[in-house]
Amino acid sequence: MSDIVKEPVNKKQKTDEYVLYYVGTPGRGEYVRLAFEYAGVPYTEMSDPSKLLATITDPAKSGHPPHFAPPALKLPSGRFLSQTPAILSHIAPKFGLAGKKEGDEAEEERSLVNQLVLTALDLCNETHDVHHPIAVEDYYEDQKEAALARAKSYRKSRLPKFLKHFQAVLSSNPEGKKNGGTYLIGSSTTIADLVLFHVLEGVLFAFPKRTAALKKSGEYDNVFALQNRVAGENGIKEYISSGRRQKFGNGVFRHYAELDAEE
Amino acid sequence: MSDIVKEPVNKKQKTDEYVLYYVGTPGRGEYVRLAFEYAGVPYTEMSDPSKLLATITDPAKSGHPPHFAPPALKLPSGRFLSQTPAILSHIAPKFGLAGKKEGDEAEEERSLVNQLVLTALDLCNETHDVHHPIAVEDYYEDQKEAALARAKSYRKSRLPKFLKHFQAVLSSNPEGKKNGGTYLIGSSTTIADLVLFHVLEGVLFAFPKRTAALKKSGEYDNVFALQNRVAGENGIKEYISSGRRQKFGNGVFRHYAELDAEE
Repeated sequence: MSDIVKEPVNKKQKTDEYVLYYVGTPGRGEYVRLAFEYAGVPYTEMSDPSKLLATITDPAKSGHPPHFAPPALKLPSGRFLSQTPAILSHIAPKFGLAGKKEGDEAEEERSLVNQLVLTALDLCNETHDVHHPIAVEDYYEDQKEAALARAKSYRKSRLPKFLKHFQAVLSSNPEGKKNGGTYLIGSSTTIADLVLFHVLEGVLFAFPKRTAALKKSGEYDNVFALQNRVAGENGIKEYISSGRRQKFGNGVFRHYAELDAEE
Repeated sequence: MSDIVKEPVNKKQKTDEYVLYYVGTPGRGEYVRLAFEYAGVPYTEMSDPSKLLATITDPAKSGHPPHFAPPALKLPSGRFLSQTPAILSHIAPKFGLAGKKEGDEAEEERSLVNQLVLTALDLCNETHDVHHPIAVEDYYEDQKEAALARAKSYRKSRLPKFLKHFQAVLSSNPEGKKNGGTYLIGSSTTIADLVLFHVLEGVLFAFPKRTAALKKSGEYDNVFALQNRVAGENGIKEYISSGRRQKFGNGVFRHYAELDAEE
């Protein structure tokens, strides 16, 4: 339970009415879980694949409009919201995860947090696309040759480009410096920090050799310090040690030894 | 100039202070342009590539944080915001493009609009990735074989899946029915309608044969009716006929005859 929840969930609603519709593996649904775990807001999960999809794709059940894919979050109002960045941008200000600015500036800060979330999720998407560069509906083994080529570009060009960007964001944050330069915006944890944390965890799982080499270069120290810092935050620390956090496997982030290398 | 602007830009600020930082071609920056054109809000553009990038990637010039890539929008406050969905979600309520609900429901509707925008932009991204499945930093010609394989999956599986989704959204919208089923949410134009319009224009440019065949099937009539409806809206109609709207070319949406087919 974090002590920095700025604005509790609407008091007219019971906070245990949030239900995350997602199949277990720590893919895109994990970003939503981390927001709840950090903020200490109760939630439950619906993870039966067929029931899940039947509900969220049926407008009569989910409330208009139907949804393209999980994760979807059933809100206390009974309506469903899907698309990870839309869910996160919706709950972030309610959970105190959209920055600490007040008044006119609050909305701009929330949008900047959203911007950072979207860039971190772009890295998540590109990490996924390495193992599925041709067709998401086909097996990895059927597109392995293209995956090997894409992995080379990812390791050499894309992953360092994203890490360089986040290093620049962290090291140029005027308010974050007093906290060791591990806050993407302001001087408190936002949903952007939580998302980048999980992306880094996923990248480390999928590309351990390349990630170790990039870490060793010393060029992205603030980025990896953020990963450590978030792992120790109240709410997240307890979640990690609870055993409820599921292991990476065959989801968005996958480890194929042949796609990884130090360079 | 549209007549349905709900909430004009903050009156304390001059509306001509919005500056779009983007290189001309109608890629991701076009979604931002359409919001301004529809709402009749003045904006200018900065499209000099080197000056543009030097500004938005330098935190001292752009205001914290630095940005990963254009488009970026200079806000009336002087701060910059990047990531297309973050920009659109920020300006949509100010421009009357985030739905018409009031009070508590307004924020949920804005998030649902954001959800729909994100799904339409996923289709945009997948359409782009067809011609660059391996490495964005390399030429199409150097990844043509993989592009041909990805195009096959896109035409057969991905494009119809997205169209089917938007057809379901449009045809199940209880409020939109009285307007011919061409509103993704509610019964007024939102940024989601404008984004889907431009994605469809781009898909039609890139895959004219496949798009014609899907249109002819009659399974996605509401989707193509939305495309027609938005093209005739006040603000958009004038923009199209003004000659200011740039032609598709070598940007996000590209036409390579060998990637297109009826099936």
